[in-house]
Amino acid sequence: MTFTVTFQPIGRRVSVPAGTTLLDAARLAGVDLVAICGGEGNCGACRVRPREGALAPRTSAEDAELPASDLAAGLRLACQAAVLGDVRVDVPPESLTTPQRLQLEGQEHAAELDTLVTALDVQVPPPGLHDLRADSARVIDTVAGHGHAAGCGLAVAAALPAALRAHDWRVRLALREGEIVGVLPAGAGLYGLAIDIGTTKLAAYLVDLENGNTAARAGAMNPQIAYGEDVISRIAYAADHVDGAQVLQATLVTALNRLVDQLCAAAAITREQIVEAVVVGNTAMHHLFAALPVRQLGAAPYVPAVSEALLFPAAQVGVPLAAGARVYMPPNVAGYVGADHIAMLLGAGLAAPSQTAVAIDIGTNAEISLFHLGRHWSCSCASGPAFEGAHIRDGMRAAPGAIERVRLTGEEVHVQTIDGCPAAGICGSGILDAVAALRSAGLLDVRGALRGAHPRLRVRDGQAEFVLVPAPATAVRRDVGVTRRDVNEIQLAKGAIRAGLEVLLAEAGVSAGSIEQFVVAGAFGTYLDLDSACQIGMFPTLPRERFRQVGNAAGTGARHLLLSARLRETAAELARRVEYVELANHPAFTALYAKALVFR
Amino acid sequence: MTFTVTFQPIGRRVSVPAGTTLLDAARLAGVDLVAICGGEGNCGACRVRPREGALAPRTSAEDAELPASDLAAGLRLACQAAVLGDVRVDVPPESLTTPQRLQLEGQEHAAELDTLVTALDVQVPPPGLHDLRADSARVIDTVAGHGHAAGCGLAVAAALPAALRAHDWRVRLALREGEIVGVLPAGAGLYGLAIDIGTTKLAAYLVDLENGNTAARAGAMNPQIAYGEDVISRIAYAADHVDGAQVLQATLVTALNRLVDQLCAAAAITREQIVEAVVVGNTAMHHLFAALPVRQLGAAPYVPAVSEALLFPAAQVGVPLAAGARVYMPPNVAGYVGADHIAMLLGAGLAAPSQTAVAIDIGTNAEISLFHLGRHWSCSCASGPAFEGAHIRDGMRAAPGAIERVRLTGEEVHVQTIDGCPAAGICGSGILDAVAALRSAGLLDVRGALRGAHPRLRVRDGQAEFVLVPAPATAVRRDVGVTRRDVNEIQLAKGAIRAGLEVLLAEAGVSAGSIEQFVVAGAFGTYLDLDSACQIGMFPTLPRERFRQVGNAAGTGARHLLLSARLRETAAELARRVEYVELANHPAFTALYAKALVFR
Repeated sequence: MTFTVTFQPIGRRVSVPAGTTLLDAARLAGVDLVAICGGEGNCGACRVRPREGALAPRTSAEDAELPASDLAAGLRLACQAAVLGDVRVDVPPESLTTPQRLQLEGQEHAAELDTLVTALDVQVPPPGLHDLRADSARVIDTVAGHGHAAGCGLAVAAALPAALRAHDWRVRLALREGEIVGVLPAGAGLYGLAIDIGTTKLAAYLVDLENGNTAARAGAMNPQIAYGEDVISRIAYAADHVDGAQVLQATLVTALNRLVDQLCAAAAITREQIVEAVVVGNTAMHHLFAALPVRQLGAAPYVPAVSEALLFPAAQVGVPLAAGARVYMPPNVAGYVGADHIAMLLGAGLAAPSQTAVAIDIGTNAEISLFHLGRHWSCSCASGPAFEGAHIRDGMRAAPGAIERVRLTGEEVHVQTIDGCPAAGICGSGILDAVAALRSAGLLDVRGALRGAHPRLRVRDGQAEFVLVPAPATAVRRDVGVTRRDVNEIQLAKGAIRAGLEVLLAEAGVSAGSIEQFVVAGAFGTYLDLDSACQIGMFPTLPRERFRQVGNAAGTGARHLLLSARLRETAAELARRVEYVELANHPAFTALYAKALVFR
Repeated sequence: MTFTVTFQPIGRRVSVPAGTTLLDAARLAGVDLVAICGGEGNCGACRVRPREGALAPRTSAEDAELPASDLAAGLRLACQAAVLGDVRVDVPPESLTTPQRLQLEGQEHAAELDTLVTALDVQVPPPGLHDLRADSARVIDTVAGHGHAAGCGLAVAAALPAALRAHDWRVRLALREGEIVGVLPAGAGLYGLAIDIGTTKLAAYLVDLENGNTAARAGAMNPQIAYGEDVISRIAYAADHVDGAQVLQATLVTALNRLVDQLCAAAAITREQIVEAVVVGNTAMHHLFAALPVRQLGAAPYVPAVSEALLFPAAQVGVPLAAGARVYMPPNVAGYVGADHIAMLLGAGLAAPSQTAVAIDIGTNAEISLFHLGRHWSCSCASGPAFEGAHIRDGMRAAPGAIERVRLTGEEVHVQTIDGCPAAGICGSGILDAVAALRSAGLLDVRGALRGAHPRLRVRDGQAEFVLVPAPATAVRRDVGVTRRDVNEIQLAKGAIRAGLEVLLAEAGVSAGSIEQFVVAGAFGTYLDLDSACQIGMFPTLPRERFRQVGNAAGTGARHLLLSARLRETAAELARRVEYVELANHPAFTALYAKALVFR
């Protein structure tokens, strides 16, 4: 007898024999659940939330591993729960491992459909000796005949003559606020392009403007990495080299155009069908994309060239879409709180929360927003690149072979690597887990010194280190572990983040315990273990249900901004009302930072 | 004893001894008057209008040469009139020879000053740790503090950071309809750029937006000539070659940028000080400049891509001016009545004439407008390139050595060449004069056959020809003259023009004799002899004072459009109301054309 198991929100289905565990069903369905212990029921990682259908009763392993709150909420361990009927289960993001990362983005709540660009199918009368109107005039007149007033800009006017004749005077027009922005074959679908320019990664989404669905997505590394790993070094490159900014812009745009080509191929559409784009990024990426100068972003007081939202022709930055397609970029808050932060807040549904809420996106800088009683503060903390694997001896990006989960049970060290490959290094969530686990096990003191007795703890080259995977089991044929210096990097990072949060809480006059909603965004934020983050004091210890890991909410926000004119007003309102707190000269920062450095 | 002679409207002054003729004074002043007879008092060409001061009484030569109407109007022959005091005289355009051609353009009536771009000097507060506003935001806030609401586009935002810091936060802003379009050093003057793109020649003017004065002017050949002499061949080039249109656009823009550099150097300003541009041209030149497709202009029914006025960033077409500078292009009427025709009407002050008025610009096509009782008709006649010296055996452009004036007195042939150089050929006004003079002298029959007896009339290679300058006196060492075939070319041209005019008159239900104002524009139109044009029937015979030769009125109109927002509304209104008459399928055209071909 077989039953159907449906995994939500990914939407994968699989048929399995009765008695199959949900973990095995997930493997068959291609849904990669975290299973550090390999399905032994002793790591507690593969938590899922049953929604419908019959499962075998809870096992003793579940009773032992799941915290009371999870048990009360009806959570199960996938490795223990056997299928006894057609079942539907929700998979929380934290239970998914790397390959599903992109699919997390499916978790978005639906955006309202209030698109700026709409379609109008028209039959345009062809010219003749008794009708000598210009092509643009006859199209504008035809549109007026349908009850719409719309002009057209130079680029669209240039595209009209060929398009009208190619489609035999029957075309679909894309109209945007009194302007014709595209000329398509009759019936062709209209699409929007959402792009999130990360310092490290680019994410691009093709959105069907008719129903708001994401038709295709594509990602790539940001090729500007060749000119500097981080924002600071790229600003320096732009400022110090003749045409440096142009080189960075062109490099970026080439990669983005490649992504657009991939999206078009995947959805079987043409670029002309993309009638609007939303691009988000941190302030430096935003400026480099829009060909705005970045020199002043590289020196105190680090002011942006532009903070208000931008709207300009896509062709102006070298991304050919529909002839009149515009790029919208949400407002920047400050030099280090960019348009991507605004997009993240919108993507996470935090336009105007009634609760006391925190939203944080951790990269080389961590941008934090605090909402309390109708006000909104934000700051940027120099958390450093430790969570991106830099400045960590065995650090690496979140790529196959990176240790992403670490648990210590007595003398046993459980690690999970991305894609299950032999360990090649440690990525951000792995180093966070390792430090938390070492601290839990009493192997780290409050200052971050490794101490105590453990078979994996040793001193090499005068420095204490904890070996996570001994050389023979690694891909790199050397011990992969965590050093005293690595721990210090994590201390600096978590200290900066926590201190930034505390400064905002102090500004608002509210305690950490009052935070009702704690949203963690971004790639690292999605894969970090919340317990670990609280354990080392990076986040305040709050009831687990107050936390929400929202994945690439900036990308989600960008897609929503494609679909909603009202949301763009909300973005402007957010940027207008936010109170930016500069930590550099904040009187309380230094003391709070010193306090946040130690492990409690 | 010396007196001062002032030549108007050119504004040249010279001191001369008492008794000097006005012609000699003009030579000293560098004002080149037409003097076919060399100052003998027998060609009647050097007519001037005394305005102030004492001249010797009229001579018998004047009484003989000047028609009664001129005598009544007080006109004098400059070669006869001796200076007896400080004198001011007006020089009509037809009395000037080539080198002064550009100066004719000084005849414009002053445009009202109603500029779209205005200056605002501001002191912008620099950023600091307690003022972290973006550069654009602090400028926008500062402008708001001066009582103006103004945003800025991407290009200006990109220019702000460097400009603010270079000028130590004290800048002059160029504001245009709620937008900042330029950032200049405090006190820098704002300028506009007017460009007339002729098929053959380019004219560029730098206009001081503060007082409306023309600060500098420059001209050049249109380098697109290398891709085709006329509009038709350039359209074919653009349509038939890959990137043909781009090549033509780039070639043109390169030449225009060189002119802009010359203008900036002449006025000692920077390109950033040019905050607006107006560009006019016939429909094909307009389209090629604005990167609009021209293929449909090359085939019936010859419709433009765009007829409405255009406004777009100068940078978009590759002409870098102030960061946010716009190019305005007046509306086109039809495929062969372009934005330059609208500009010409405005430059000649014909926005809404209360009189019955005709305005005509003769090139390869002749564009004609007729105003009557509040209505406005226009058409384009395929007059052909004969008046530009093409399809004429000894034809040449109006360049040094071209015969530009011809008079016959009995057996004597008087010719005047441009710059007085030995004859190299005949330009439009010369061939027109020659045909008129031959007809006057009875050497041409109604069908255009050369006949009768004259020492210069002969048959060579089976074709009748009239020698204007025998080989020994020419620069080309061969007889320069007019052939039977040349006369036919002129017949076709003048017939097309007159037939076009007659069609418009028929549409309006008015006779030629009712035309109260007859404006002739353009280079050829300025230098043609009106008597000759009437003599051959190209223009109807009207009292001389109804004619007005207005020089490059399109260039004047372009300058006025820089200075007046209201005039742009007038341009739109003109284009909206004009009734374009297509001659190709007009029922009366063929008969009127046949009638207009013959000499009466």
